Amino acid sequence: MNLPGSCALFLFECIIRIIMEEKACAGNSAILLIHCPDMRGVVSSVTEFIFKNKGNILSLEQHVDPIKDVFFMRIEWDMSGFSIPREKIGESFGSLIGDPFNMQWTLNYSGEVPRMAIFVSKLPHCLYDILARYKSGELKVDIPLIISNHKHLKHIADQFGMCFHHSEITPQNKQGQEKSQLALMREHKISFVVLARYMQILTKDFVNHYPNRIINIHHSFLPAFPGAKPYHSAYDRGVKVIGATSHYVTSELDAGPIIAQDVTRVSHTDAVEDLIRKGRDLEKLVLSRAIRSHVERKTLVYDNRTVVFS
Amino acid sequence: MNLPGSCALFLFECIIRIIMEEKACAGNSAILLIHCPDMRGVVSSVTEFIFKNKGNILSLEQHVDPIKDVFFMRIEWDMSGFSIPREKIGESFGSLIGDPFNMQWTLNYSGEVPRMAIFVSKLPHCLYDILARYKSGELKVDIPLIISNHKHLKHIADQFGMCFHHSEITPQNKQGQEKSQLALMREHKISFVVLARYMQILTKDFVNHYPNRIINIHHSFLPAFPGAKPYHSAYDRGVKVIGATSHYVTSELDAGPIIAQDVTRVSHTDAVEDLIRKGRDLEKLVLSRAIRSHVERKTLVYDNRTVVFS
Amino acid sequence: MNLPGSCALFLFECIIRIIMEEKACAGNSAILLIHCPDMRGVVSSVTEFIFKNKGNILSLEQHVDPIKDVFFMRIEWDMSGFSIPREKIGESFGSLIGDPFNMQWTLNYSGEVPRMAIFVSKLPHCLYDILARYKSGELKVDIPLIISNHKHLKHIADQFGMCFHHSEITPQNKQGQEKSQLALMREHKISFVVLARYMQILTKDFVNHYPNRIINIHHSFLPAFPGAKPYHSAYDRGVKVIGATSHYVTSELDAGPIIAQDVTRVSHTDAVEDLIRKGRDLEKLVLSRAIRSHVERKTLVYDNRTVVFS
Amino acid sequence: MNLPGSCALFLFECIIRIIMEEKACAGNSAILLIHCPDMRGVVSSVTEFIFKNKGNILSLEQHVDPIKDVFFMRIEWDMSGFSIPREKIGESFGSLIGDPFNMQWTLNYSGEVPRMAIFVSKLPHCLYDILARYKSGELKVDIPLIISNHKHLKHIADQFGMCFHHSEITPQNKQGQEKSQLALMREHKISFVVLARYMQILTKDFVNHYPNRIINIHHSFLPAFPGAKPYHSAYDRGVKVIGATSHYVTSELDAGPIIAQDVTRVSHTDAVEDLIRKGRDLEKLVLSRAIRSHVERKTLVYDNRTVVFS
Repeated sequence: MNLPGSCALFLFECIIRIIMEEKACAGNSAILLIHCPDMRGVVSSVTEFIFKNKGNILSLEQHVDPIKDVFFMRIEWDMSGFSIPREKIGESFGSLIGDPFNMQWTLNYSGEVPRMAIFVSKLPHCLYDILARYKSGELKVDIPLIISNHKHLKHIADQFGMCFHHSEITPQNKQGQEKSQLALMREHKISFVVLARYMQILTKDFVNHYPNRIINIHHSFLPAFPGAKPYHSAYDRGVKVIGATSHYVTSELDAGPIIAQDVTRVSHTDAVEDLIRKGRDLEKLVLSRAIRSHVERKTLVYDNRTVVFS
Repeated sequence: MNLPGSCALFLFECIIRIIMEEKACAGNSAILLIHCPDMRGVVSSVTEFIFKNKGNILSLEQHVDPIKDVFFMRIEWDMSGFSIPREKIGESFGSLIGDPFNMQWTLNYSGEVPRMAIFVSKLPHCLYDILARYKSGELKVDIPLIISNHKHLKHIADQFGMCFHHSEITPQNKQGQEKSQLALMREHKISFVVLARYMQILTKDFVNHYPNRIINIHHSFLPAFPGAKPYHSAYDRGVKVIGATSHYVTSELDAGPIIAQDVTRVSHTDAVEDLIRKGRDLEKLVLSRAIRSHVERKTLVYDNRTVVFS
Repeated sequence: MNLPGSCALFLFECIIRIIMEEKACAGNSAILLIHCPDMRGVVSSVTEFIFKNKGNILSLEQHVDPIKDVFFMRIEWDMSGFSIPREKIGESFGSLIGDPFNMQWTLNYSGEVPRMAIFVSKLPHCLYDILARYKSGELKVDIPLIISNHKHLKHIADQFGMCFHHSEITPQNKQGQEKSQLALMREHKISFVVLARYMQILTKDFVNHYPNRIINIHHSFLPAFPGAKPYHSAYDRGVKVIGATSHYVTSELDAGPIIAQDVTRVSHTDAVEDLIRKGRDLEKLVLSRAIRSHVERKTLVYDNRTVVFS
Repeated sequence: MNLPGSCALFLFECIIRIIMEEKACAGNSAILLIHCPDMRGVVSSVTEFIFKNKGNILSLEQHVDPIKDVFFMRIEWDMSGFSIPREKIGESFGSLIGDPFNMQWTLNYSGEVPRMAIFVSKLPHCLYDILARYKSGELKVDIPLIISNHKHLKHIADQFGMCFHHSEITPQNKQGQEKSQLALMREHKISFVVLARYMQILTKDFVNHYPNRIINIHHSFLPAFPGAKPYHSAYDRGVKVIGATSHYVTSELDAGPIIAQDVTRVSHTDAVEDLIRKGRDLEKLVLSRAIRSHVERKTLVYDNRTVVFS
């Protein structure tokens, strides 16, 4: 792929960020996300592991699903002075705690900056919002790639100095284009994807490459009004609130685990265009909250529902 | 029908209210609700009618549905000094304004207290809420009748000194019981009905006796989760907001015109019982808002949607 | 004190409740609320104490105040099978964990029903709301005592079968009356107090008898509009939201630690009476949330701020 | 003043907009904002004036302040076919209706695009938000001028192709700089000003040049926490909601008439930085709502309060 000129600025920024993050990493923290069958001693064992190795717990949240008897935990501790070196923690934790408790767990570090791809079509508001948050330092990610099935928003990517990849989709070329997109994403080491009002349905195969790592924003309070034109449907039904829903994409349309939702009031005075206008603000807010939760490793998916730690 | 002893207090209260309202009626206001095809001169003609007859407009709200080209208005004016006597206003307005503009209109007076029947089953929270609002004077209605298919809440009616009518429903006796209920409602001159978590589906015939005058509270943000057990469905779907919807009852279940809706946040930490608990507060609020709008003649129904003036 | 006749029903109910709770206590859980200087090993030590004694943790929430370096925790565990008998847990925990970590801690059991006194004046809405929640089993407290400086709401206490104590306050008799009230509260073993729109300022001495155990509802979003007539002030200032604040009472008026707050939208169309009406719903909701948090031992006060676990 | 190169694009856009608006003006509507002492016949007279001259009313909102006896109205009508030419409407309306009713009124046309100046300091979020709304066509204004007392945000103005004017402020040069700013604003025919987190207090003299035409965003729910560092004060007070307030600037700091307010929940888990982060989203939303109301001529100021029509 040829990098357009606008990407030069981006690369420069990346280098600056890497330098700055190196420093940040010095005072880094580790984040462990866990779920396992609920049983006595889980919290005690995990916290003891951290304590004995001289970690100071910065935050701990746990949740028990009383119906499924599943235990969930997010625990973050200060790594300065931790007695196990980073590259050995996983091995040590897995054998001592993870395996005996039959855990599924992931270990991350606060200094690791996830690499996010944005997919867009023609609507600019979510893209503007994400890029403004990114540029002002609020959103701790790298964004090496913006992919679109249209050229309409290229000028925004250019304006912010971001890479924009146009990938036109037709029913005939869809599979091939998705393959190219996946190749591009591998090349850029993309860790998760944000569909910022991307007006294409991804194939099951594409979704399977990024399980629970593709975040969509749908412009209704799901499960009401799935599919196309939810604001029109909301108008027709005469609802008094409209909403937006951010969820992980699964192979079933608009049915994946919900990460964040919010609503706003509407009335008979609001035409469809007013719903669309009010909805835009909701979409931006809800999507950015979902991205934030994902980036801070605060989401766990189980049985098509999410645990979203605060 | 035999009035239970608890109704004595109620009758006494009614007499007091009637005396007090007589006085209130002196400084009464008229409320006109209108809808008609949109055309030039409607507002001007209506306001001129009031002005020429020495009425002072207290509030005016209008709305134009730009898709259906329908005009809606609620106008309220001070009757003191109005030059047309009350009993002639309808005739005069109809021939001069209503007919030429092809209007559908209703005329009411702020001093007229609507007579409300409450239908309940086993859940007490909405009943408590309505009766507390009624007793503290917030809700300007008379409540001559509480009907229930169970005896569970009779003690609450008794406690508040209200009439309670038990009307057990089985699949076999439903039609007959509804007939008796309708007779009872006629006898008590009921002007509208509130289903305060009434767990029976009314027949089409019953609904047709009170078109746009039966207010239901459904415990979800419709159109999501219609029908039974919406909190369980909301839990299963993993939504992050739950809601309540108050609507006029039509022959199609949970599909009538929506009067009021509201939502509250929930999270993975909320079990179904928490959703039910949080939902109770929503149901009370949303139902009481809908009743208030109806009682103040602020609702108009058109094409299965409502105009709810503020 | 002579118990009025209406209290007979109440006493009967109490007996029923006690019998039922005995059973509930069988499957009881313990709740530990802790705060101490933040240091390594707190979570690990507390959870290990519970684990080693065969307790199963039902919920755990912790918080670190990063400015003051204070650690807060609420931990609840299932007592069935716990190896230390109830009456020894405090002693054991204190010497093994509490003292070494310099903790302040309280231990409670979910089966213990707190005894709440309600103070009211003339406004009925919060009283109705609390009693309806109590009677329908939502609010897990005993309410042996309603105290008022007016007789206006006695009929509500009677109607719900509750004890009502009239205690008229004048500038001259205030100190004496408060002494009688305190005596009455001791007699009824009151564990905390709810001021449900009680229109008297408590003396410092009274407040000191129930530190962080007197919950007030103030009808504004504090710190805006403290003191008298906040809705009038809100109207004059032309705010677009009004609020309600529930807080623990301290000797400084409306300045105690905030437990819960909420707001609702208003506009130029709302007269002061509309603010008062809309505010009533807020007050009920916010007060009931605060009571619930307190009753479930989810509140901790530190430095005039609260930690309110979810 | 020398226009920086980045302004070239802006000028081009302006030309395009002017061409497009000419067309839009063809199907233009007139907007009349009125306030006057309340008396019989106002609505009737105004609507008759429009009707007789063949205007079709598109929307009408009125409000009566019952305490001050002041009448407020916003009325918008379709100008196509209106029998009075634009340039004569004011004269005609004034002599026939305005003067007799002792009205204060302003007449605008929906096709007239207000010219807005943005003042900023160092914080980018509101500027990004406004410019994104402007560029995507949501905000119907021209923005010929961005003024800042710092250079920090110049790159954003450049990136969006907007004019940026740096105007450093010291206690010594403040008066002179404000004079230059006012001259610049005259030159650019600025109709109103938005302070998008501008960290300078404007002099009384400056404010008097744009009465009720300077919109500020303050980062608290006023009247709580006026002045500097409201998020820190909110944290210290331990509030459970934070807010943002948009108001017209008057000579008294943070005390002008409020246009829009909103709040969001916070808890003990939120550090000051979290309040700042959550607050940013509020500030953007509230400011954009206030700008929108102003631009659509939906605001009226009376007695330091606003009427904001929906």
